[in-house]
This record gives sequence, C-alpha cells and structure tokens, in this order.
Amino acid sequence: MQISKFATPEIIFGNQSISQIGESLSRLGARKVFLVSDPGVLDAGWAEQAIKHIKESNLDYHLWTHVTPNPKDYEVHAGAAEYRDHECNAIVGVGGGSAMDAAKAIALLGTNDGSILQYEGVDKIERPLPPMVMLPTTAGSGSEVSQFSIIVDSARKVKMAIISKSLIPDIAIIDPQTLMTKDGRLTANTGIDALTHAIESYISLAATPLTEVLSLSAMRIISQNLRPSVASQYNLEAKQAMAMASLQAGIAFSNAILGAVHAMSHQLGGLLDTPHGEVNAILLPYVLEYNYIAAPEKYRKMAEAMGENVAGLSLHDASRLMMKAVTNLTGDLQIPVTLSELGLQPEHIELLSRNAVQDVCMATNPRDMSAEDVKALFQKAM
Amino acid sequence: MQISKFATPEIIFGNQSISQIGESLSRLGARKVFLVSDPGVLDAGWAEQAIKHIKESNLDYHLWTHVTPNPKDYEVHAGAAEYRDHECNAIVGVGGGSAMDAAKAIALLGTNDGSILQYEGVDKIERPLPPMVMLPTTAGSGSEVSQFSIIVDSARKVKMAIISKSLIPDIAIIDPQTLMTKDGRLTANTGIDALTHAIESYISLAATPLTEVLSLSAMRIISQNLRPSVASQYNLEAKQAMAMASLQAGIAFSNAILGAVHAMSHQLGGLLDTPHGEVNAILLPYVLEYNYIAAPEKYRKMAEAMGENVAGLSLHDASRLMMKAVTNLTGDLQIPVTLSELGLQPEHIELLSRNAVQDVCMATNPRDMSAEDVKALFQKAM
Ligand SMILES: [Fe+2]
Ligand SMILES: [Fe+2]
Repeated sequence: MQISKFATPEIIFGNQSISQIGESLSRLGARKVFLVSDPGVLDAGWAEQAIKHIKESNLDYHLWTHVTPNPKDYEVHAGAAEYRDHECNAIVGVGGGSAMDAAKAIALLGTNDGSILQYEGVDKIERPLPPMVMLPTTAGSGSEVSQFSIIVDSARKVKMAIISKSLIPDIAIIDPQTLMTKDGRLTANTGIDALTHAIESYISLAATPLTEVLSLSAMRIISQNLRPSVASQYNLEAKQAMAMASLQAGIAFSNAILGAVHAMSHQLGGLLDTPHGEVNAILLPYVLEYNYIAAPEKYRKMAEAMGENVAGLSLHDASRLMMKAVTNLTGDLQIPVTLSELGLQPEHIELLSRNAVQDVCMATNPRDMSAEDVKALFQKAM
Repeated sequence: MQISKFATPEIIFGNQSISQIGESLSRLGARKVFLVSDPGVLDAGWAEQAIKHIKESNLDYHLWTHVTPNPKDYEVHAGAAEYRDHECNAIVGVGGGSAMDAAKAIALLGTNDGSILQYEGVDKIERPLPPMVMLPTTAGSGSEVSQFSIIVDSARKVKMAIISKSLIPDIAIIDPQTLMTKDGRLTANTGIDALTHAIESYISLAATPLTEVLSLSAMRIISQNLRPSVASQYNLEAKQAMAMASLQAGIAFSNAILGAVHAMSHQLGGLLDTPHGEVNAILLPYVLEYNYIAAPEKYRKMAEAMGENVAGLSLHDASRLMMKAVTNLTGDLQIPVTLSELGLQPEHIELLSRNAVQDVCMATNPRDMSAEDVKALFQKAM
C-alpha cells in the first residue's frame, strides 16, 4: 500500500452560483481581479455576468480574453505581462478548459519568474500562486478542480502538462446554467472528455478507493445524461447532471492522474490544434482494447456503471460490453471516427509516438506502453 | 436546485503516512506545535511516533494529553491556556474524535477570544485558525476532515456542535496502522459511528450527488469490513478499508450534515458521558424506521450498498431489508441493545427530547420531528 494524496478546491455548485464570484474573491483577499475568458464566453454574456458580481463586491478588475483553444505559451506570456501591468492580485477564469488552463498559467507567472516553459512536469513551482477562482462554462475539462494546466509549447508544437498542487484553484464555482449557451458539438466533445477522465482515472495505476468511487459515479451519470444534454441546449436537468459528472471526474483525475488516451491526444492537440474531446473519443476505444488485460475486473465494473447488464458474463465478455457502451455513445453523438478526418498525416505518427511515451499521463497507464505500441494504436485510429 | 458547498482538507492516506506529519506542519508554517492526544493513544506509542517525526522537521512542540471521551469545555479552556503559555503557532490532534475535536476547539481559542461556549452553532468564528493537522487513530469520527467540533457544555450537560469551515483541518493524515492498537469494542463503536455518518448524510436534506456517492461507498465498505476488523486487531486489510470508509463518510457528513440519530445521541453523550458509537447503534434502527417514509428509494439503494439482494422487491420490502442489514451488523458486534443499559433513566427523556429538536443536526433530518416524536423514539430504545 502506497501513500496517496488527495486535494480539491472548495466547491460551490448550483444554478445562479455565478452570483457568488465576488464574495468568493473578497474572502480570498482580492483587490483587483484579472479575469480570463474567451470570445465565445464573452458573446454568451457570462464574462459580463461575472463582472457584475465582481463589481457588487467593490472589487476592481481587468478583463483579458486573448485565449484560443489549446492555449499557447505566447498567449500566457502576454496575459502575465498584462496581469503585472494592471497590478492585479487575484485571478478568475470563466470559460472552458482553455480559458481556465490559461488563467492558471498566468497565475503561476504572476508570482514565479521566467517563461511558462520552465514549469513543464511535476512540482516545478516554487512560490505560492495568487488567489484563484475558476468558473467552468463547459462540462468536461475538470480544470476548475485539477492540479493540471496544459499549455502548448508553440516552438515544439507539443502540449506541456504542468502539474502541481499549487495549480488547484482556491474556489471552483460550478453554475450549470452556463452550459445552456453551448452547441451540441461542444457539449458532445467536452462530455466525452469528461468520460475519458472518468475512465482513465479509474484504471490509472494511481487510483485509490476515494478516486475510484468518483470515477465510477461520473461514468454512471454521463451514460445517462450526455445524450439528452447534447440533444437539447435547454435540458437544464441533463446539464446539471453533466456538470456534476464533470466535477466528479475532475476530482478523480486530478488525484489519480490519467493514461494513454491523454498522453496521445496531447500530442495531436499540440501539433494540429485539434479539439481535445474529439481526439479522445477517437482514441479511447483503441486504448481501452489495449489496456483491457491490465484490469479486466475494473472493466466489468465500468460496464455496470455504464448501464450494461453483466450478470453471468465472463470478465472477457463483460469487458467487451464496456467497450461497446463507449462506442455506442460516441457513435450516437456522431463524433468523427478517424484521426485522418482531423488532419493527421501518416508521417507525423513516428514523432508523436515518441513524444507520447514521455507525456506525464503515460506514467499511470495501467499497461506498459512502448513507442512502438503507441504507433500501432495511432495507425489503427487513422 | 439549491446552491451547495463542498470542502475537504488535503488528505494523506496510507500505512506509515504518520511519517509525513513533520513535513506537513513545516509546509503550513509551523514553528512550535501544540500536540493534543489522549492517554490511551500515548500508551499505544502513536504520540511518541508523531513527536519523532515532528522533531525530524526541526520543529518545537508541546504535548498535551488532558482529553477525556466527550471532551469538556473546561478541558478546552485549560488546553487553550497552555497553547498560549507555550507560544505555539500550530496544532496537531493525534487520537480519536475526542482528541481531534478538542484540538480544533483549542485552535479556535488560539486566535479567537472568550469562552468556547460562545461559538456554539454555525459560522460563529471570526478569525482564521492556526494551521491544523489531524491524525485519527480510530476509524469513525471523521473529525479529521469535518467542519465540526463537538464539545460538552459541562454546566448544562449538553453537547454543543460548533460548525464552521474554519474548523476543517488543513491536512488530514490517515495511517491505518494506528487502528491495530484498538480493542474490538472501540473498533465496533467507532465503526458504527462511521456507518451512522454514512447513512445520516445520505438521507440528509442537504445531501448532494457528490456526498451521496461517498456515503453509499462508505456503507458498502463498512458492510464488508467492519466484522473482520472487529474480529482481529491484526487484520490490516480490514483496518485499511475501515479507515477509507470512515474518511469517505466523514467527507460526506461534513458537507451534507447529519440527522436525528446524532441530534439525539449528542444529548445522551452530554448528560451521561456515554460512548458515542454505542448510543448511535442503539438509536439507529428506531430512527431508520421513523425516517423511512421520507426517502424509500434511498433506502432501497442503501440496502443494495449493504449487500442485500433487492431484485424484484417493493420499496417497502427493500427498505425492511436495509434496516435488517443494520441490526444484523450491530447484533453480530454485540453492541448493547437498550439505552437503559447505558444508564438512561425515564425521567431524563423529557429534557433530552426538548434539547434534541434544537440540535443543529436535526435541521437536515429528512422527516419532520417534534419533541414528542423524539420522546417516543427514546422510549422505544429504553
Ligand atoms: Fe481531458
Ligand atoms: Fe458521529
């Protein structure tokens, strides 16, 4: 039995909880807030709402929205310069995983010197970060509760994982109403990302009974609610369920880390700027098949959590059913089925495979994996 | 949908994790540590072990062990005076719920003025507490992760619940090996306390999907592991499982609060200094029967979690099975079956019932309860 660690931010969950953003920041000692958001969230009106509540608490703010999907190192550096120029002392991220990861990286550079590139890997951060409040507007990334920030090294075209307890926000505010302004495709992508977090954290070598119960619960909720959530922008009940599932999967993977799907999809995201959830959805079935022999009993439990009837089935057959449940779901959501469709060329695979085995998420994958193994999976997924 | 809040300390879990106590305190800025423990834990050698690791981190310490079961206000006041006299700036509790609750109350008075009696109720604490690290040596109270401190008002002979996010320790260190020095009776009592936390938090009016999944998981683990843990002091596997179950139930009840069992047992503990777990075990079946009509579907899910086969059963019959699972467990552990055996006199019941409806835990009980209702339950349990 190894010693395991577990940490989460304080969590505020519920419709209208966005109204607590000002009070939360005040409580953390904020004076001037650097608000990171993206153009889409701005259009939907959520940044404005956040600002309204920040002002109500008599706090000053500076809005910064120069974030793109798969946030880049130079965006983070530009944001950090503005953070300092405007003499802010707290950070809020309002948006999807990209906005929140960028906000965390800017917070990092708010109190630590140098380039964001220096902080790749585990526990490289020296000084405490400014107070951070995160408010996700998608149900997927889990960044609002995680110790991860994923930033693209634009020169190497690689996604760097920065992992540190310091990156766990102080407060996560989860308001399911914000999910009602997302289209079906984004809802599907981010929902599959959450499912991948639940699955990879569950079979991770660093899983504990505390993370496992959250992972399984997230799978159960997603299996029941992702389809209806994608079907209608106005199904608030399904959005609430997906917000909760994403939260649970986020807590699980922040503490149990992930596996080969993320190790591989980080490489594609860095190279081709592909949507994270779509890449995960394409890779997940192949990686599940590869990993199966490492944890058949866990596959059986995942099948059950996903609503399959495994009574009387062998571990082999129950595991097949679990994999079928995943492809049924991604199929129903009409997610692309090959990496070629997302622009991957055969000549990229060699390099991506070599980089994938170096990704920090690979260390907790339940089955050993060489660059050759990764290559074979990338090829299958083409 | 109401807005719900969720908070936990940082958690370090595993055999030998006691070795992390010095490093944890250093990280929190401790200079001189006030170590609260009790004579039993001292005899077992755990306070000494903690001190060894505190010294390894070059921290000064002061040991204080004047805690009794159901800790009293005057003990807390004496402890707080010593904390100040010895110019400590951090607090560690090593022991069961009593030692940890006393440690938290002393921490409260380390930075807040007056008598501990002033802080009864919810959110009465004004100033931040000194850094706190808790290391439980029983698997039951959940105090290491909770926002509760339960202290006896010795003049009124009533247990006061002090509830505040400030009472959540900074770090909880859970080392299952410490459970191997407990006898069967204490293991049984504290285990039933953990079960009661799981059940009451699950059917609480303040339960959320995040606490519910932890409550159910704790019930599942306790149903499978409490008997073998009571059977042998040396069954480390069962101790590890019970430590995890107690942790999960603790996180659940700290965030979802409790119900009538605790509201009632607090009164007996205050008046007669009775063992908390035994009183809970006696009251639990009667309260479960009373509460059933408030949440039949939840009773069915609890029956399943406790290992009962509810396939094809009506909600009524499945609920009966759940209650039977509880009395089977307390019966197997030979816990006393009446409050009279613990010294309760019929003439006490009137006052205890009036006080129980005022207890903060009563507010989240799923079925309305008048003083008359409480009285009837106390009488049944005599
Ligand atoms: Fe992801
Ligand atoms: Fe209790």
